[in-house]
Amino acid sequence: MTTTREMLDASPTAVPFGVAEVAAAVDACLDCAQACVSDVDADLAEPDVAEMRTCIALCLNCADVCDVTARLLSRPAQCDRFAVDHLLRACVRICTTCAEECARHADHHPHCAVCEKTCRACIQACSALLDAEALEELQKLGGA
Amino acid sequence: MTTTREMLDASPTAVPFGVAEVAAAVDACLDCAQACVSDVDADLAEPDVAEMRTCIALCLNCADVCDVTARLLSRPAQCDRFAVDHLLRACVRICTTCAEECARHADHHPHCAVCEKTCRACIQACSALLDAEALEELQKLGGA
Amino acid sequence: MTTTREMLDASPTAVPFGVAEVAAAVDACLDCAQACVSDVDADLAEPDVAEMRTCIALCLNCADVCDVTARLLSRPAQCDRFAVDHLLRACVRICTTCAEECARHADHHPHCAVCEKTCRACIQACSALLDAEALEELQKLGGA
Amino acid sequence: MTTTREMLDASPTAVPFGVAEVAAAVDACLDCAQACVSDVDADLAEPDVAEMRTCIALCLNCADVCDVTARLLSRPAQCDRFAVDHLLRACVRICTTCAEECARHADHHPHCAVCEKTCRACIQACSALLDAEALEELQKLGGA
Repeated sequence: MTTTREMLDASPTAVPFGVAEVAAAVDACLDCAQACVSDVDADLAEPDVAEMRTCIALCLNCADVCDVTARLLSRPAQCDRFAVDHLLRACVRICTTCAEECARHADHHPHCAVCEKTCRACIQACSALLDAEALEELQKLGGA
Repeated sequence: MTTTREMLDASPTAVPFGVAEVAAAVDACLDCAQACVSDVDADLAEPDVAEMRTCIALCLNCADVCDVTARLLSRPAQCDRFAVDHLLRACVRICTTCAEECARHADHHPHCAVCEKTCRACIQACSALLDAEALEELQKLGGA
Repeated sequence: MTTTREMLDASPTAVPFGVAEVAAAVDACLDCAQACVSDVDADLAEPDVAEMRTCIALCLNCADVCDVTARLLSRPAQCDRFAVDHLLRACVRICTTCAEECARHADHHPHCAVCEKTCRACIQACSALLDAEALEELQKLGGA
Repeated sequence: MTTTREMLDASPTAVPFGVAEVAAAVDACLDCAQACVSDVDADLAEPDVAEMRTCIALCLNCADVCDVTARLLSRPAQCDRFAVDHLLRACVRICTTCAEECARHADHHPHCAVCEKTCRACIQACSALLDAEALEELQKLGGA
């Protein structure tokens, strides 16, 4: 069990989207942010840095958006579903673009291969929250 | 002229949405993030801290979202319009909720009055970018 | 093996202090930052929020300093030992103060108990880097 | 008068180091962080990106350390002088290295010239706080 899961389990309020799902998304976002920060550092030290400039730029945005998404999801008591929804969509988009660019360098730069993997895990975890939200909306409509 | 404007003027690439508009939004986001960070600190030191808990929670999210919006807007060369659009919408929403809560305390807590003012300035600057984007979309449709 | 460890193993440059030690410190910092962010959210939702104000304030600083320490340690290629040393000292100090305050609430607030535990793990991991650095300095002096 | 100054003036507690000095340091840190974020983006878009890799790496660390220094200085009520002192020293060091590297590119990259200027302003504002602190220590010793 991760720290995130322990912290959310100990929250005095309900956790929107579900504890397991949010904990998974927070951990995936933090993992992805870390990988992107390290990938930029590694890319800058490679001989083919000129070919890595798009990868670097995408990783920079990805790290920052994942970090803030993890922060907001770590605060269930004052969750703003509308804002979190927009952050999740931004996060999934940026992780997707970043994963695709990392994939282009994955065979010659092992750090890009790891970064791609964590971006894809983050896409999956954040998409699961968006799906849960869509299902909830649907159920509300069905119940009306 | 602010540093942000000087930096964006010196960018080797075009600045989506326009330099003046983006510089204004970055500066408004940074101002708002600073005000929210200080407002939390001030709220925690007030005798009526129990009444300030919503204000504190909203300011925390507002500071983080404004910070990341400022960072992404400060990177025009690798701008992802889709992601920036979602961040701007999250930012306008969170600033609006935060401004409304600060307004409830503005008469007895001067720090909340200042924070409300900077939230409202941030809403205006970010909304201007969203309006510019909507107009651009409309013109594309009109030109088709 | 964590993502952090995989990323640092894949770094094209040497990792100052050692890969295992830095990966452990980065993961401990990220864990601690997450716990502090969630602990603030939980504290704000507790009936005794007025008694939690010091805890909240300390967690806020702790989250931010842990986040930046994790970021700098995640960039081994351009490591500034002098700056990292100061960040580690700030981090150990803030985690210590935060752990002590969380300990005061650990019996009635499980989230504070988890937060205390992650602060202590972070102190240990960051102190290990400071110890490794001190040993290195000593060996340099001995070899002179 | 900046927002930072207004917020600190409205703080219910005393501001260690003095309001004017801290407000100046916060604003200089936020300015410098913004300039560094934009400078990285601009460097990555330059034809001589391979020559800019050190500049990019230094700006990344500088932005993150300035951001966290601004956050901690924006929270006077729960100020930890020991931690803030270490952050200020890390900040002055990183800004100095960053300014020196930007200076090497300032004649052919106007964005590096602006970035160097804001780094130097940040060094000055943070050093003023360290000087004020040293003077305070001296006065304590003199009074004993």
